[in-house]
Amino acid sequence: MLNIGLLGAGRIGGVHAKAISSHTGSRLVAISDVNTEAASKLAASFGARARTNEDILADASIDAVLIASSTNTHSDLIEAATKAGKAVLCEKPVDLSLARAQACLKAAGATGRPVMIGFNRRFDPNFAAVKAAADRGEIGKRELLSITSFDPAPPPVSYVKVSGGLFRDMMIHDFDMALWIMGAMPDRVTAVGSSIVDPEIGGAGDVDTAVVTLHFADGRLAVIKNSRRAVYGYDQRVELLGSEGLLSAGNVLENTVAKATASGVVSAKPEFFFLERYMRAYSVEWSAFVDAVTAGDAVPVTLADGVNALAVAEAATLSAKSGASVEMSSVLN
Amino acid sequence: MLNIGLLGAGRIGGVHAKAISSHTGSRLVAISDVNTEAASKLAASFGARARTNEDILADASIDAVLIASSTNTHSDLIEAATKAGKAVLCEKPVDLSLARAQACLKAAGATGRPVMIGFNRRFDPNFAAVKAAADRGEIGKRELLSITSFDPAPPPVSYVKVSGGLFRDMMIHDFDMALWIMGAMPDRVTAVGSSIVDPEIGGAGDVDTAVVTLHFADGRLAVIKNSRRAVYGYDQRVELLGSEGLLSAGNVLENTVAKATASGVVSAKPEFFFLERYMRAYSVEWSAFVDAVTAGDAVPVTLADGVNALAVAEAATLSAKSGASVEMSSVLN
Amino acid sequence: MLNIGLLGAGRIGGVHAKAISSHTGSRLVAISDVNTEAASKLAASFGARARTNEDILADASIDAVLIASSTNTHSDLIEAATKAGKAVLCEKPVDLSLARAQACLKAAGATGRPVMIGFNRRFDPNFAAVKAAADRGEIGKRELLSITSFDPAPPPVSYVKVSGGLFRDMMIHDFDMALWIMGAMPDRVTAVGSSIVDPEIGGAGDVDTAVVTLHFADGRLAVIKNSRRAVYGYDQRVELLGSEGLLSAGNVLENTVAKATASGVVSAKPEFFFLERYMRAYSVEWSAFVDAVTAGDAVPVTLADGVNALAVAEAATLSAKSGASVEMSSVLN
Amino acid sequence: MLNIGLLGAGRIGGVHAKAISSHTGSRLVAISDVNTEAASKLAASFGARARTNEDILADASIDAVLIASSTNTHSDLIEAATKAGKAVLCEKPVDLSLARAQACLKAAGATGRPVMIGFNRRFDPNFAAVKAAADRGEIGKRELLSITSFDPAPPPVSYVKVSGGLFRDMMIHDFDMALWIMGAMPDRVTAVGSSIVDPEIGGAGDVDTAVVTLHFADGRLAVIKNSRRAVYGYDQRVELLGSEGLLSAGNVLENTVAKATASGVVSAKPEFFFLERYMRAYSVEWSAFVDAVTAGDAVPVTLADGVNALAVAEAATLSAKSGASVEMSSVLN
Repeated sequence: MLNIGLLGAGRIGGVHAKAISSHTGSRLVAISDVNTEAASKLAASFGARARTNEDILADASIDAVLIASSTNTHSDLIEAATKAGKAVLCEKPVDLSLARAQACLKAAGATGRPVMIGFNRRFDPNFAAVKAAADRGEIGKRELLSITSFDPAPPPVSYVKVSGGLFRDMMIHDFDMALWIMGAMPDRVTAVGSSIVDPEIGGAGDVDTAVVTLHFADGRLAVIKNSRRAVYGYDQRVELLGSEGLLSAGNVLENTVAKATASGVVSAKPEFFFLERYMRAYSVEWSAFVDAVTAGDAVPVTLADGVNALAVAEAATLSAKSGASVEMSSVLN
Repeated sequence: MLNIGLLGAGRIGGVHAKAISSHTGSRLVAISDVNTEAASKLAASFGARARTNEDILADASIDAVLIASSTNTHSDLIEAATKAGKAVLCEKPVDLSLARAQACLKAAGATGRPVMIGFNRRFDPNFAAVKAAADRGEIGKRELLSITSFDPAPPPVSYVKVSGGLFRDMMIHDFDMALWIMGAMPDRVTAVGSSIVDPEIGGAGDVDTAVVTLHFADGRLAVIKNSRRAVYGYDQRVELLGSEGLLSAGNVLENTVAKATASGVVSAKPEFFFLERYMRAYSVEWSAFVDAVTAGDAVPVTLADGVNALAVAEAATLSAKSGASVEMSSVLN
Repeated sequence: MLNIGLLGAGRIGGVHAKAISSHTGSRLVAISDVNTEAASKLAASFGARARTNEDILADASIDAVLIASSTNTHSDLIEAATKAGKAVLCEKPVDLSLARAQACLKAAGATGRPVMIGFNRRFDPNFAAVKAAADRGEIGKRELLSITSFDPAPPPVSYVKVSGGLFRDMMIHDFDMALWIMGAMPDRVTAVGSSIVDPEIGGAGDVDTAVVTLHFADGRLAVIKNSRRAVYGYDQRVELLGSEGLLSAGNVLENTVAKATASGVVSAKPEFFFLERYMRAYSVEWSAFVDAVTAGDAVPVTLADGVNALAVAEAATLSAKSGASVEMSSVLN
Repeated sequence: MLNIGLLGAGRIGGVHAKAISSHTGSRLVAISDVNTEAASKLAASFGARARTNEDILADASIDAVLIASSTNTHSDLIEAATKAGKAVLCEKPVDLSLARAQACLKAAGATGRPVMIGFNRRFDPNFAAVKAAADRGEIGKRELLSITSFDPAPPPVSYVKVSGGLFRDMMIHDFDMALWIMGAMPDRVTAVGSSIVDPEIGGAGDVDTAVVTLHFADGRLAVIKNSRRAVYGYDQRVELLGSEGLLSAGNVLENTVAKATASGVVSAKPEFFFLERYMRAYSVEWSAFVDAVTAGDAVPVTLADGVNALAVAEAATLSAKSGASVEMSSVLN
């Protein structure tokens, strides 16, 4: 039984609190937040105590922490927690600065404590089935991966301004998905973006619609499409073309009902957003973390994976600005 | 907060124990079973006490009981529990004997306590959406309902022998679905059945494959197909033809992945059986019971509904044997 | 090259005229109709001559006739044409009277000339693929067949009155489909019908909505649903449950386009009616006839098949009226 | 009635010969080919005469020519035919040289004769429905277009060498589709390609797998994926994200049959290649040409459209080589 401290009591913190509490191998004992009221309220509903970060990290009875605080605190908390001997599950992204993330990787790595990054989509049963089938060789050699990833509605511009931009904030999930499915880092990144959903997003220096192409050293390709707005819901699909076939994972729909009338056949929309679509993935993710930490096994998504995805996001940001491809080697040095 | 006694610690009892425990408005306090070891084991994992039926019914601190024991105990337990002032959620069927079920309805009705029957499929979000759309008039007047309901594999013949037969044991779910969606009792039932899946089922005097047609007084029709074996999984579909369109609810698939290769496109099978397909429905069902009992509202599936479905099953059993249609009026008198 | 006389210049005659003309192995040389103007007009657009039935049958240069005249002329024309040495493709049904059809079978059979009945749906590539897969044993033993067959809109009551009723006029296609796919005649027929689409159809003594269950001697079942009205289009589907799986053939949609918006996902309707859905089937049917006649092989749908389907329709008509199952042996004498 | 000369008697010439002959408004009177035997053979089966190009162009009774000869002859034949007063339907691409195509546009334009380019996919009912729905504003403002376009198998390397490369030979169809659906020329083209399907294609200096992103002046984006090999068949899909929804056109499958067994659900593959998938489109395309020429209306796909698509292909070719985006303005000057 692992005793868990949850750092961050916001919306995603609440999702994790539920997963931690429902798991028979973990117990949620403490919650922190800069908003102490939020921490107290969440703690109360899960039978945990509201405490400070320092307090939690200093408590030797706490085995692991889940970091769900704001992005700018991630690197510091990962370093402090691992130094304090905790196992860590940290939300994405590791940091907005690639250099800072790389330093964090070095520091946390030195402690030998497990650090897992919350790329929850890897635990979606649909995408996991695509990866597993590809790994079993069911479509031969992987050649061309396509990821469609549209949010239902754009975030407020206030959020966009501190988000690090679409590539580091939103597409970073898709970069991790691509690297994971293709099993390699790209050698070249080409990005095209624009702001057509909301001009204020463009005004804030970000894009809201983008296409990024990843080129791998052996010639394989991956293409990722992002839009901040798909009014019909959260559009999350993956297609992988291989030498012997195509694997695809479609959207999860709200229900299986269809209505045929004189004006056409109407069926359900995709589940609305990540809380609906990935609720089960969050639970599987947490189980994977608990299982790995309990057994002393390697965590399935490493801090290095988080840094790699961030490096690709950095390259994409540069490419979208310059209009030229960016060699990953130029970003990583 | 309702204190709940669970009568029956078998497989379905375990499903209910989880739903009861997970609900914020109910607390599982006691579990009984003729197999006292099973009761103790289940009680231990949910922090409840193993007790006898008598003990539970006599305990004034227990507000409601969930009856998940064997069918032959249902009527007696419903009567005893309502007499003891408990609210009741009882698994289907009410009884194998229509006369006994009718007597139970009378006796339990006299107590004024709420009794809900566990027709869990009404709480499946897909079928519920079909019902709701029809009730909103989205396809005009309901005309012809079709229910496909196939189990993945036949039960052991030992079970078949005590089950009351396919119509009372398996198709009773579909009868309730039909009566619920059509909003009426049929006036005439026509059944054709045979034993082609497993000759031993025929040897036990039952059928394993059947088609039943319900005729309603206003001319509307419903047809139900059952098979004890669909090797590809639990096939649970509904189609409702109306004067202005068709509503259909399809299977819930294991995932959304498709694989296209030179030999065809392969996609996932339906979820395997009722525990997978209706896991969410059990939870919604329990919520509906807790909400109704807590608020003092009528329960959404009544004991009378359970008796009605049993009456149709009785008519179908007779029709399948005689080869003639059976008037419901002849069964109900 | 076969020289063809077309008897009947109505709507379906026009469809056949096109199929005959487009085929490289047949030449449309003559057309007859009681409406001589219609015959002349159709003949003109296909470069054929308008003639009388007698004239066409007496012309030794004409190898085969396609009978697309009204049902009450079919038996007489089949007998006359085969007596005149012609090969015959005749539209369904053979006759409205089973006795007359049986006499026709005897008379035509005595001539040794090939007579094929136009059960066009056998030539639909989707249904043909189901049949072929079942014949290859892909789903093991056939157990339960389901046919959904809804017309987009009811015919005028004037047509209903001379049609022979839904079972002989409309469901006869499905009876042939069932007998063909199951590879046997049923031993018992159970029908339930009502008139809920259009009360005038009921007033004319017919039903517009019906469910028929066929029981085969070895216990296998088939169920057929018909409605005269599905406002979303021609609904033509088949499902066959076998001991090792399920084969299904769905509707052919107008296109593959889907539109996802905030109010749902809208896709195309089934193709409107038989002229759209089965246009290709009519052409394949004609090819099959030409190939068989040219090669001297047996035609793929025989006059006996037409009589068998009519016998089942007769039994269904009786069953729907009496409310009791009808033994096929009682119909066949 | 238009008298038509067909220049080119290869595979695609045969497809056009059939469309020309089947149309009630056109008559195929003459066929030419460098392979005179092929011309004679094709002419024989369609009741036309085999003649030379010069002969056909000089014949005043011939109203229009369909150019289906090898690409390197297109520009010359377009110029010669329009100079001779013929209306022209020419297969894509106009030329492999953008400069030559531009000169041809100028020369042919000066004659005032209609020249249509055979971008047959515009006439596919599925893609046409997407375009029409977008034009009706059904998904609001167009934002992000995705085209998936995979061939079933790579062509021989001998063909690749003279093809002008994947962008001019294969993706040119998709460029036209993109320009047509988006209703504009892009201002910037970014291409990433590689040779992973067949190393010999790379050896010939071409790519077999590519992703091209088009950026439009108003910020809208389009992305096109091409692969020379999808072993499951011809994969031809389009998705258009707009401010109010998503329109998608899926593959046309060989049939609607599904087989569910213990090992999954198997359904049909996409139709094999362009002759299957676009057979109907070729016929609609020809009708559109005949209708426009007969009525004196503008043809629906102009020579300028052909030159535009070629210009984008030129930019893509340059971008794939340099790794940098290419401004269309740099290509067009």
